[in-house]
Amino acid sequence: MTAMREDLVASSDEPWEELSQLLESGSPEQVEPWLAERSSQDLPLIVSRLDETDRVALISQLSPEAGAELLEHLPLVQAVQLVEEARPEDAAAIVDHLPSDQQADLLTELDEADAEAILRQMTPTEAASARRLSVYEDFVAGGLMVSEYLRYRVQDTVADVLADLEAKSDEYRDYEVQYAYVCDRDGSLRGVLRMRDLLLAKRRQEVGSVMIRDPLSVPDDTPLEGLHQFFEEHSFLGVPVVADGGKLVGVLQRRAVDEAWSEWHDRAYMKSRGIVSGEEIRSMPLWPRTSRRMVWLVGNIGLNLVAASIIAYYEETLQAVIALAVFLPIISDMSGNVGSQAAAVSIRELILGVIRPQDAWRVVRSELLGGLINGTVIGVIIGLVALAWQKSPALGLVIGLAMTLNTLISAAVGGVTPLLLRRLGADPAVASGPLLTTVTDMCGFFMVLGIATAFLQYLV
Amino acid sequence: MTAMREDLVASSDEPWEELSQLLESGSPEQVEPWLAERSSQDLPLIVSRLDETDRVALISQLSPEAGAELLEHLPLVQAVQLVEEARPEDAAAIVDHLPSDQQADLLTELDEADAEAILRQMTPTEAASARRLSVYEDFVAGGLMVSEYLRYRVQDTVADVLADLEAKSDEYRDYEVQYAYVCDRDGSLRGVLRMRDLLLAKRRQEVGSVMIRDPLSVPDDTPLEGLHQFFEEHSFLGVPVVADGGKLVGVLQRRAVDEAWSEWHDRAYMKSRGIVSGEEIRSMPLWPRTSRRMVWLVGNIGLNLVAASIIAYYEETLQAVIALAVFLPIISDMSGNVGSQAAAVSIRELILGVIRPQDAWRVVRSELLGGLINGTVIGVIIGLVALAWQKSPALGLVIGLAMTLNTLISAAVGGVTPLLLRRLGADPAVASGPLLTTVTDMCGFFMVLGIATAFLQYLV
Repeated sequence: MTAMREDLVASSDEPWEELSQLLESGSPEQVEPWLAERSSQDLPLIVSRLDETDRVALISQLSPEAGAELLEHLPLVQAVQLVEEARPEDAAAIVDHLPSDQQADLLTELDEADAEAILRQMTPTEAASARRLSVYEDFVAGGLMVSEYLRYRVQDTVADVLADLEAKSDEYRDYEVQYAYVCDRDGSLRGVLRMRDLLLAKRRQEVGSVMIRDPLSVPDDTPLEGLHQFFEEHSFLGVPVVADGGKLVGVLQRRAVDEAWSEWHDRAYMKSRGIVSGEEIRSMPLWPRTSRRMVWLVGNIGLNLVAASIIAYYEETLQAVIALAVFLPIISDMSGNVGSQAAAVSIRELILGVIRPQDAWRVVRSELLGGLINGTVIGVIIGLVALAWQKSPALGLVIGLAMTLNTLISAAVGGVTPLLLRRLGADPAVASGPLLTTVTDMCGFFMVLGIATAFLQYLV
Repeated sequence: MTAMREDLVASSDEPWEELSQLLESGSPEQVEPWLAERSSQDLPLIVSRLDETDRVALISQLSPEAGAELLEHLPLVQAVQLVEEARPEDAAAIVDHLPSDQQADLLTELDEADAEAILRQMTPTEAASARRLSVYEDFVAGGLMVSEYLRYRVQDTVADVLADLEAKSDEYRDYEVQYAYVCDRDGSLRGVLRMRDLLLAKRRQEVGSVMIRDPLSVPDDTPLEGLHQFFEEHSFLGVPVVADGGKLVGVLQRRAVDEAWSEWHDRAYMKSRGIVSGEEIRSMPLWPRTSRRMVWLVGNIGLNLVAASIIAYYEETLQAVIALAVFLPIISDMSGNVGSQAAAVSIRELILGVIRPQDAWRVVRSELLGGLINGTVIGVIIGLVALAWQKSPALGLVIGLAMTLNTLISAAVGGVTPLLLRRLGADPAVASGPLLTTVTDMCGFFMVLGIATAFLQYLV
């Protein structure tokens, strides 16, 4: 009955308006219970609707625990925004309560001054651990691992370990404990201890005799792709991370790798669509948002002018046969489409591991074959349209031939571009778009106008 | 020493050439050991280089166990190809040995006749279970769950369960066992049994008193997005799947949801780039590959012709000011870019949950604001280029103004298109491309040529 009444009251306001009223009414004790009642799915939308004043108030009115809980339910890009805007002491208290891998995620996304301001306000041990993790690049084992894990020495006894687990159970409760890790005196990883084996062992045994020896581990500089591969091949929930030839420095959870993998893909998608920062939501301030899109657009104008210079060069032909101007944007768009299909297949094949960057010639051959079929079909269609419209068989032939040839070229160029980019160390999914469009546009304009110029006497 | 010698011998041949020789030499007993020595990372590339004869020979020369092992290390698209080409009895023997979720994946990808031929050759219990799973759509709980799991009745005793585990340990070894599931007489899910609690319980207790009661479960028709959300919120490794108001029908592993999620994204990417089937690798036969690309290209010609009809309508203006023709493809490409950026941000925001489909007006406002800034900048640049090239201030003004206005329109249209598509139930990431390009092209051509026509007296 109470729940129903609340629903009726709430329905007049959107939830973010309620929250905004709470934040401004100066009753911080009501904010946490209100947030706790929301479904975690609704939190990103609610937060995105607050203005900056309310966002700062929200962070300052929450306890550090509740703030950390909230950040864990928000997309990283939104969490970064909240922390950036908050007062450093509020931000530090909250970041203190995050797991170490999420601390590192946040701190590496902030600009250096913001991150430093927060680190200075954090408790010294948390700050030291966060600094250690944030020297790593985002997408390597060291940047994704946690430093909260169980660690014992080979000569500890089973009784020592059990006593430690009991004594520090409050601290350990937040860890994702499946295993404990065993090191020798100089910190080198020697083994992995299963909780089950611990329970079944004699209490006076040394853990060195109970552990699994020489466990698999990954070096701290292993890139994300290697880590993804590792967890594809092994059904582990986590793996120890080592540095300097064997020293245990952290534990990498499968979950962290899965999340990083999908974030990396999302960023690549955004970059491929011209969001150079890899991430944008509209609640960010207008200027940085807009200027980052601008950089990409201005670069594209440059490429477009290069391609259009071909048209300018053939101005006389165009003047003589103005109907050609109608077909230039079509040729440009269609060759872009053909190239984009071929590039997508190459990008996919590279990811699946069924082609290598040095297989350019195989790809070209395959694309030329398919391009011949599709080029002929769309060449005939577009040629017939030109013929029907201008009643000129010569125009139909010129446009159709240009389209067919340019489909062949675009398919081949589109197919190899990702391979070349991969060889140059660039991400093909991100970089292939504008480059490819420029090349196929230039070829397309040259085909139409070059062929038209050669047969100009039949066209006028 | 042996290893080194082998390396030297092997270096003269690519590995697929070695395999091809083995397959053709008629010594099937050597194929399995050879494959076992390869790293699983290299298998996709090696298989992709075999021709069809060799692929069929490979499947027929492997034991069913080794064949299943191979398929598990290949991308789904490649596994489907191998199974499609193989003799049904070879394929059936191998599919028999796959886990049930992978059986279902494969069988739903095959065309119905191929799937039926294989199901008829499978062992009856495996076939029945595969049929049960393959009635589900690919990306719902029922299609992703496994039917290999431990199931007991509430009245079974702990001793019964332990005896069963020991008796069938061979069969159960392949299961991913973290929990057992407890049902009542009519098959309704009643509880979940932790292995740990089982070990610590008295042997004569009924499992009903040891299990965790009223566990979380998901209905069998839950779509992938809901399942992804579920595992985001709960750190479970698996969840029971129920049908008909509570009957236990399977168990869904976190791994299966993660894999489906990333496959679904990969398919959306391919579709957005014009690969309508959602999947293509170049070792597929030429015709289906090419014809699927063709469908999309032909559809795009249609859309392009619609957009180009605007140019044809203004042929006289173009005839009078031929320089305009140089700028048409630039306007078309740039407005496509502006729209693509805005659409990408909306797609991302929809996925993150920070906008809803009904927020169109907010998005338009935000895009118009940013579009004004970027439109002015690129309008001024392109206007200056036109001025410098043709020494005509009027041309510069017309082109610059058209570019600015069209950037505003493209940003707004690009921003709302994904929201409208989502409202219509379509996947915005897949469907926004060609539609958006057509609209922004038409607007762009209309802006340039319409404004030029209005100010024609200053341009000639």
